[in-house]
Amino acid sequence: MSTQTIPVGQDILSPAKQAAQELRAEFTRRGIFIVNIVSSPGAGKTSLLEATARHWVNQNKMSVLVGDLATDRDAQRLSPLAPTVQLTTGGACHLEMPLIKKGLGELGEIETNFLFIENIGNLVCPASHDLGEHLRVVVLSTTEGDDKPGKYPKMFRTSQVLVITKSDLLPYVPFSVEAAVADARLIQPNLQAVTVCARSGEGIPEWCRLLDNAREQMLATRDA
Amino acid sequence: MSTQTIPVGQDILSPAKQAAQELRAEFTRRGIFIVNIVSSPGAGKTSLLEATARHWVNQNKMSVLVGDLATDRDAQRLSPLAPTVQLTTGGACHLEMPLIKKGLGELGEIETNFLFIENIGNLVCPASHDLGEHLRVVVLSTTEGDDKPGKYPKMFRTSQVLVITKSDLLPYVPFSVEAAVADARLIQPNLQAVTVCARSGEGIPEWCRLLDNAREQMLATRDA
Repeated sequence: MSTQTIPVGQDILSPAKQAAQELRAEFTRRGIFIVNIVSSPGAGKTSLLEATARHWVNQNKMSVLVGDLATDRDAQRLSPLAPTVQLTTGGACHLEMPLIKKGLGELGEIETNFLFIENIGNLVCPASHDLGEHLRVVVLSTTEGDDKPGKYPKMFRTSQVLVITKSDLLPYVPFSVEAAVADARLIQPNLQAVTVCARSGEGIPEWCRLLDNAREQMLATRDA
Repeated sequence: MSTQTIPVGQDILSPAKQAAQELRAEFTRRGIFIVNIVSSPGAGKTSLLEATARHWVNQNKMSVLVGDLATDRDAQRLSPLAPTVQLTTGGACHLEMPLIKKGLGELGEIETNFLFIENIGNLVCPASHDLGEHLRVVVLSTTEGDDKPGKYPKMFRTSQVLVITKSDLLPYVPFSVEAAVADARLIQPNLQAVTVCARSGEGIPEWCRLLDNAREQMLATRDA
């Protein structure tokens, strides 16, 4: 049997992928940089966003959609620092586009430079879902062990930035920052890495500069 | 329209649930107690099993099936201490019965009192899958925050034991053992709790006694 290739001129996207691409294009036009933050439960995503908001205090630069299976505990922590909407999945292991759109509706028209999406604490399932982000950031805490990248490869392969948190605990845990970064770069050679302590603020200026640079690059590409 | 109830005399189970029940029944007959260990990535499941094997050294009491998305890093750690088979899911976020059966085939006919199943590091998806265990143990490390039970309710609701790990880090992290246990017992009032440090061995004798008691109870119920 002979086969014939029929060119269709464009990728055929699932509705979810198409919605993600449309959101990214719209927010690029508006100059809002979307950051999808993924990690294990308890790696410190909310603490990282608290420290980020404190660093940018009075600059009105960030809004947050924060996902959980249940409770609004994270939104209670973040709301005093930045416009925040809690998304609860009712049990689902990752965020999807319809819930993101619902959250954006609740946020309303807000003047912001960055929209952070704090995903469900889960180092597996969120890797497979594009939420329209410009940047995917995987957070790994020093207490989780430096062997995690190779054990959860898709999450590290699909991320552009690795933030290593809880650097204050390095003296007490068997964790090598160099080994963790090297393990991750076996999977994703271009991964940028930054080490922080949200409680003391160590590394937070570097993290915020990285975000500002990434947004500037998006704007420059858009306007080129 | 009137409806009519037709009694079928037994629950209709999915093939996976039926396979789990059959495994549990078979292992009950053989006197082998199956423990399904679940947690976030890096909470210390493998370290807990290493400490358990060291406590029971030369007693030939335990075998392990250890699950990961990729790599055999955990089996490399556990094999010197106990008969161990690595299960890799190739990306799936939890273990299922067909992989358990394959692992048991590789373990072969082994003289053992306990079969530990170390599940994928994921506080969401493994909650929905009965693997034939007699006991489900959820591991929570002190570095993950004491607010996690309410945020991942199904995992705590379906577990019978909570092991709080990394007690050596309590002086350095904002974590209250009492608050974590209380939060978990709002969801699962009968949850047994034990606090351990796998590195120092603190709490490991109590954990092993709890396991011995649970197995004794299974045997007594079987022989009643």
